[in-house]
Amino acid sequence: MDKITVVKIGGNVIDNEVAFAAFMERFAALEGAKILVHGGGKIATRLAKDMNLQTTMIEGRRVTDKPMLDVVVMTYAGLLNKQVVAALQANGCNAIGLSGADANAIKATKRKANPIDFGFVGDIDPKDVNSELLKVLLEAGITPVFSAIMHNGEGVLLNCNADTVASSVALGASRVAATDLIYCFEKRGVLRDINDDDSVIELVTPANYVSLKAEGVIADGMIPKIDNALKAVAQGVKRVCIKHSDELLAQSGTSITE
Amino acid sequence: MDKITVVKIGGNVIDNEVAFAAFMERFAALEGAKILVHGGGKIATRLAKDMNLQTTMIEGRRVTDKPMLDVVVMTYAGLLNKQVVAALQANGCNAIGLSGADANAIKATKRKANPIDFGFVGDIDPKDVNSELLKVLLEAGITPVFSAIMHNGEGVLLNCNADTVASSVALGASRVAATDLIYCFEKRGVLRDINDDDSVIELVTPANYVSLKAEGVIADGMIPKIDNALKAVAQGVKRVCIKHSDELLAQSGTSITE
Repeated sequence: MDKITVVKIGGNVIDNEVAFAAFMERFAALEGAKILVHGGGKIATRLAKDMNLQTTMIEGRRVTDKPMLDVVVMTYAGLLNKQVVAALQANGCNAIGLSGADANAIKATKRKANPIDFGFVGDIDPKDVNSELLKVLLEAGITPVFSAIMHNGEGVLLNCNADTVASSVALGASRVAATDLIYCFEKRGVLRDINDDDSVIELVTPANYVSLKAEGVIADGMIPKIDNALKAVAQGVKRVCIKHSDELLAQSGTSITE
Repeated sequence: MDKITVVKIGGNVIDNEVAFAAFMERFAALEGAKILVHGGGKIATRLAKDMNLQTTMIEGRRVTDKPMLDVVVMTYAGLLNKQVVAALQANGCNAIGLSGADANAIKATKRKANPIDFGFVGDIDPKDVNSELLKVLLEAGITPVFSAIMHNGEGVLLNCNADTVASSVALGASRVAATDLIYCFEKRGVLRDINDDDSVIELVTPANYVSLKAEGVIADGMIPKIDNALKAVAQGVKRVCIKHSDELLAQSGTSITE
């Protein structure tokens, strides 16, 4: 095994039946050892509503009390994860669905209640990704599919951020083989002009990032994404790529490298 | 690996917080290669009620239309399966939660709609249990934990009977090593006198089964259980044992052998 590709998809793929089916076919066709990390989409909020639970978001993150934890475990680690796995199996990809608890794949730490009590929300130290497990599965031709539900090793499940799960898994995988990390989202990459889908910036490195920020080309919500990507490549991921989910198999998108 | 133990637990353990915690500790302490199969309990019916779905049972089996399939996948393959895995991990047992779709562990066939349309309900041919996967996981020191959610290999998830999942897994495991199958339930075994918990029949074989039935000692709901157990031993399982979940680690219960 000389290379591993970690791919992250979010709600825009999960919530759209046609996009979902098309993506699963593409991901199954991706060559070589690979790992999928999926986000949540709208189903948890819908189910919480059915159960008369109130959804509270602070700074874009879901406050996860015990009833809400049950909802995200059911939907993310349950329904979505198994639907993804069954769809990949139907496309000839030998997928296995994993939460962090499964085979102790990823341990997380419950976030401190101060200054904001997010409840059963966890943070991951990439050292706590079970690289040996990834190696055993990938060498057996099995493709791990992660939801963002982790555990603390003491019987408590924790809701984590799927982008962070993806970068942590990529760092864990990079201890096994050279690893690329692909974030699929709804744009074709980091755009020079937000109104022009063809204005994709092909490469971001620590060298040109400074001037791209100074010019205001990379701004707002894209800054933490690029910061995280640069951190991942600094820590051992070979390349991070941000691209449209439709273009998974194409040479496209924005690459972030050292 | 010279021996595998497959254990099945049902709703009586799942639905009781104290029994659940105690059982997970005992199962974790069980020596040697092992596999757990868990049933569903009452949570699916509760969740269906929250979602205003009607639960229809025919001959003790749940009719599973598409919305109900989503409910059982969420609860059985999601919440319960991950709670079991997290609890076993906390007890030092390296558990991995699996539906039939995961790593194509078990394929099932959708039951014919005639004479009764049960919807997304599946039946398992023990040949479709992935023995090679069980071997890889068990040899890596990993303990598979199965819910009763299977797939048909074409992207469709199916709700199966957990007792049948357990016997199918045991038959699959018996192609890897000598396999015992333990059904945990709420009695200490097959009782000679239903009112006397100490009247456990220690051994049932094809030879004494005929007379036990003729005397009326084994009757009613116990007959299909023993029939299934004898079928499993005839097909290759070494021993089936029916016992109380409290006595998992004890030499107790009713053994069914050839």
